[in-house]
Amino acid sequence: MLSISTRGQLMPASPIRKLVPYAEAAKQRGIMVYHLNIGQPDIETPKPMLDAVRHSDFKILEYSHSAGNETYRRKLVKYYKAAGIAIDHTHILITTGGSEAILFAMMSCLDAGDEVIIPEPFYANYNGFAVAAGVKVVPVTSYIKDGFALPPIAALEQKITSRTKAILICTPNNPTGYLYSREELETLKTIVQKHGLYLFSDEAYREFCYTGTHFSAMQMKGVDENVILLDTISKRYSSCGARIGALITKNKQVLETAIKFAQARLSPPSFGQIAGEAALDLPADYFDATKAEYQLRRDTLVARLNNIQGVFCPNPGGAFYAMAQLPIDDSDRFCQWILESFSYEGQTVMMAPATGFYETPGLGKQEVRLAYVLNTGAIHKAMDCLEKALEVYKNLV
Amino acid sequence: MLSISTRGQLMPASPIRKLVPYAEAAKQRGIMVYHLNIGQPDIETPKPMLDAVRHSDFKILEYSHSAGNETYRRKLVKYYKAAGIAIDHTHILITTGGSEAILFAMMSCLDAGDEVIIPEPFYANYNGFAVAAGVKVVPVTSYIKDGFALPPIAALEQKITSRTKAILICTPNNPTGYLYSREELETLKTIVQKHGLYLFSDEAYREFCYTGTHFSAMQMKGVDENVILLDTISKRYSSCGARIGALITKNKQVLETAIKFAQARLSPPSFGQIAGEAALDLPADYFDATKAEYQLRRDTLVARLNNIQGVFCPNPGGAFYAMAQLPIDDSDRFCQWILESFSYEGQTVMMAPATGFYETPGLGKQEVRLAYVLNTGAIHKAMDCLEKALEVYKNLV
Repeated sequence: MLSISTRGQLMPASPIRKLVPYAEAAKQRGIMVYHLNIGQPDIETPKPMLDAVRHSDFKILEYSHSAGNETYRRKLVKYYKAAGIAIDHTHILITTGGSEAILFAMMSCLDAGDEVIIPEPFYANYNGFAVAAGVKVVPVTSYIKDGFALPPIAALEQKITSRTKAILICTPNNPTGYLYSREELETLKTIVQKHGLYLFSDEAYREFCYTGTHFSAMQMKGVDENVILLDTISKRYSSCGARIGALITKNKQVLETAIKFAQARLSPPSFGQIAGEAALDLPADYFDATKAEYQLRRDTLVARLNNIQGVFCPNPGGAFYAMAQLPIDDSDRFCQWILESFSYEGQTVMMAPATGFYETPGLGKQEVRLAYVLNTGAIHKAMDCLEKALEVYKNLV
Repeated sequence: MLSISTRGQLMPASPIRKLVPYAEAAKQRGIMVYHLNIGQPDIETPKPMLDAVRHSDFKILEYSHSAGNETYRRKLVKYYKAAGIAIDHTHILITTGGSEAILFAMMSCLDAGDEVIIPEPFYANYNGFAVAAGVKVVPVTSYIKDGFALPPIAALEQKITSRTKAILICTPNNPTGYLYSREELETLKTIVQKHGLYLFSDEAYREFCYTGTHFSAMQMKGVDENVILLDTISKRYSSCGARIGALITKNKQVLETAIKFAQARLSPPSFGQIAGEAALDLPADYFDATKAEYQLRRDTLVARLNNIQGVFCPNPGGAFYAMAQLPIDDSDRFCQWILESFSYEGQTVMMAPATGFYETPGLGKQEVRLAYVLNTGAIHKAMDCLEKALEVYKNLV
């Protein structure tokens, strides 16, 4: 009999995209929707990246090397060197977005039934890749009251079983914006060394740190075999549609295994690689303006949020997300309601309910994630909407 | 302890790419290598496709819809209609290459331990995706003496167990070039209906049929729920680097499940979709010249092969591959030897040992796959090399 696979049934629908029909309906009613729900920046893609694609002059759009163009990988070495990460091009596998790097890391290092520990709340799609790989996600909770700092070492170690193969972190973090300190990374180092675990480190937002310097898992000594860096150009250069990422490790066996998965899918996108390579010629100060812009937005958003009665938003150290605790009963219901039944001056706001970022049932019901991917003007208007909405909502429930 | 996953260990390295170092070494010795080993056409990508990308004028390289741009999907409906396939845009999921369509189909319909029956020899990467999905490939052998026709219905049914969930075919076929007849498809229909199986139909080479008309699995009545079409623009428009394919089905549950996998990886490449969409405006006779060129190459290659003593090559009905039986002991050894230890007038030829396309151990040792992706001049020179090589080789072994 025809049936859907169990993993297909378990596969989570995107917790963010499920609200899309409500946003579309609002727009059809003539309401302007501020999208603070997804990590699609409004920052322009650097023109030299787009120009490199536009001025390309090949006649055949060929497969690239399965591991990505060697010229690109060689140039990336300099980028990572500038970030304090010493690698050579043989440590780099270019992937189809950071997404594929996550999938390849899980597939190469974990079997079905194996466990990966992830501090929650976490990027919801980790769950999707875990289901695809049959891997069990074991959450260790971080709390908004602590600003989402790394949970204590004891809480982490308590989660380790004989099936635990890896710890996965994201720094600075999506969805919390938390920037892991060097000390926290060193704590993780102790744990992965002691228990023989992989450390998957998603550093998609490396350049966007506001309250300190980014410290990469790849900068630690003595864990070359443990650390697998998951990276992407999507956020760094506002190039989400390029679908170019990277899996980077000095663990030769892991890289060789990941390359076998890469060979099966033949090659990463050719145009995206051209754009990615061109990004490496951007001036060294390229990130200054973007980072300053995000920092301004963060400051605006966090100040506005904390000014609303009953709202608490810890100051995010990096990335372009903030988690806010709201005086609401259920973030899923509230985020749907604000699209479906509310508007202020013909406008409303789309946010991501935090429940989708927690693995533990029941957590995140009073929290939402806001992506500060819009300019400060739009952020102010969105916060006007949220403030008014909370006033109305409290009288409803 | 750090270890590679079992699936990572089982993951096959590309049977084609493992000869690359020998080809590179030959080139370093100054030897010209004719690449008949991979399906990378030398046909130019249609200029309007590349121009569409080069003339694009957006400022932000954004994510697209997870299922692909709606404009692209809507235009594809007309393309499929012209091919005799009646669908609408909601039946289409744009994937990152045909590769991802294969993976999503397996992930959505089969669980770890489930079985998919595939006539062998088959496209080697099916194995890779099966390993990634934990799916067991059950081969049913087709034979070079029969021109690789679909094995008898009894042989197919004999392979069906309680874990069988799908039959996977490729028509016209890679690696054999075999074009399944309407009658053979109808036979498969009977089987999938009787046993409640999915029929995955990989039709990447639809336009390149020389000995008959292409008949798609999607053209059959009464199996809307069973059939999943796997497609790609890679070969059709010589656009392998675009990484754009499609999973198409009228089975709503399967499509909704596949879209969940698609949401996890966010979106297919944006530039590739622009190229793919532009392809749909090519003149209706676009394929005539390409097809005529491939047919000429096929005729040239097959005639030359069958003219060599002890060589047998059935005439391929489609695609751009031919399988040839050679008077050799071991195709892996021979294909390595011809790169490593042989040259004729400073030239040699790279072919794919057929062993990599068979699941059953021991099969394919006297066979090689030749991709006629080079012009007839190059094919003649490559065949000169092969003819001389076989003369030398027979005295060695």
